[in-house]
Amino acid sequence: MVFYLVGLGLGDVTDITVKGLNIVRGCKKVYFENYTSLLSFGFDQSQLEKFYERPIIEADREFVEQKIEQVLEEAKNEDIALLVVGDPFCATTHSDLMIRAKEMNVSVKVTHNASILTAIGCTGLQLYNFGSTVSIPFWTDNWEPDSFIEKERKEYEQPRFLTCSQAAKQIIKAIEKNKMNGKNLVLNSDIFVVGIARIGWDDQKIIYATLRQIAFDVDMGLPLHSLIIPSFELHPLEKEMLNSFIFK
Amino acid sequence: MVFYLVGLGLGDVTDITVKGLNIVRGCKKVYFENYTSLLSFGFDQSQLEKFYERPIIEADREFVEQKIEQVLEEAKNEDIALLVVGDPFCATTHSDLMIRAKEMNVSVKVTHNASILTAIGCTGLQLYNFGSTVSIPFWTDNWEPDSFIEKERKEYEQPRFLTCSQAAKQIIKAIEKNKMNGKNLVLNSDIFVVGIARIGWDDQKIIYATLRQIAFDVDMGLPLHSLIIPSFELHPLEKEMLNSFIFK
Repeated sequence: MVFYLVGLGLGDVTDITVKGLNIVRGCKKVYFENYTSLLSFGFDQSQLEKFYERPIIEADREFVEQKIEQVLEEAKNEDIALLVVGDPFCATTHSDLMIRAKEMNVSVKVTHNASILTAIGCTGLQLYNFGSTVSIPFWTDNWEPDSFIEKERKEYEQPRFLTCSQAAKQIIKAIEKNKMNGKNLVLNSDIFVVGIARIGWDDQKIIYATLRQIAFDVDMGLPLHSLIIPSFELHPLEKEMLNSFIFK
Repeated sequence: MVFYLVGLGLGDVTDITVKGLNIVRGCKKVYFENYTSLLSFGFDQSQLEKFYERPIIEADREFVEQKIEQVLEEAKNEDIALLVVGDPFCATTHSDLMIRAKEMNVSVKVTHNASILTAIGCTGLQLYNFGSTVSIPFWTDNWEPDSFIEKERKEYEQPRFLTCSQAAKQIIKAIEKNKMNGKNLVLNSDIFVVGIARIGWDDQKIIYATLRQIAFDVDMGLPLHSLIIPSFELHPLEKEMLNSFIFK
């Protein structure tokens, strides 16, 4: 028997691969990992169940982190699938799960799918030239980390989705703070950045505008959002492509 | 009418998404972009045609770069699909195509899919911490660029697939050359690296070994191969996961 990790892609239920769909329909039990995703609007549970022809068991972060052994135990006797939005290894490594499965001698198979980390290539920017990706935490009244590389807090909150506007505002504030402290930054609020929303959805939106415009003037609509600060040295084709998304 | 760019993912014909399959089956003409891919073994043309229920027209690099306008012209009157292995925007930006389509007022829709740039997360390494990706060119007798960041040569050759072993050998030679020239490198042939082959296939292989072992002792099998030089600062879970792939 096999424990399947199945990526669902970025858009709607039909973004599962044909291979993935066949696997899900053949599984005894199907879990849906809900903590990195959008069950509330992008993926509706009854819609999933209808399309996959299986009841879906929601698995939140706590469940995946603490009760996964019991699911792996089940996978010794019957095929089990865990559905993950995007690609199974993009948002989290699932290393813990993989290592435990190996220890328990449970066979794991993975069905990959699209992830925002590569779908973002639709901006025309060469993925080869991207540096490392950072997650920008929500700031609170008394917690404003501005390195954006600090580790996630261990107590997970209800998922909220940072908008491009919120991210841009935090970046502008972080720039100002760093400048006041005498740091010499190449960043300022007039640099052009790329706002991206709902990649893979019918109403996806890509806007090329200044950091200040993204912060205050651009409405990107519903989540999920991403923000790219492009290199100052772009290929002419990259520039031309970005210009086609310019904010008017 | 719409010009569809459809990603096929990494493995076999069933790695297309359900959405992608419906699109392809509804298109008048289906092109298959062959220059970044593996029609010869991974994707067999007759297999594709049978599964997609459509005749497939092979499109090589020259075709996509020089005759795409004529295809876009066709897309004004009927739905056309261009199939691309992996995600449509990972290996190439297709910016030229996108810009011309906009100029010609042709609607383009994209179906994303898995790419090696994210599927590689199955090594247990955090994708967030990856730096930029480089392509290692095949060395010839009198052409041994060792920056690995020089641009591709303009005359495209028959596709060949660099193996992990070949890549590791070139890296070792480049290290030696740079050291002889007095450069102070942290790299040496005893560092541990990750060899990856055929991700998404049934016989995918991940091997954690020294650069020298990958160069001379490890047989990764058929293409496609990727090689990761991991950071010297790994998370304990990343280390544990890599150790499960250790070369014996």
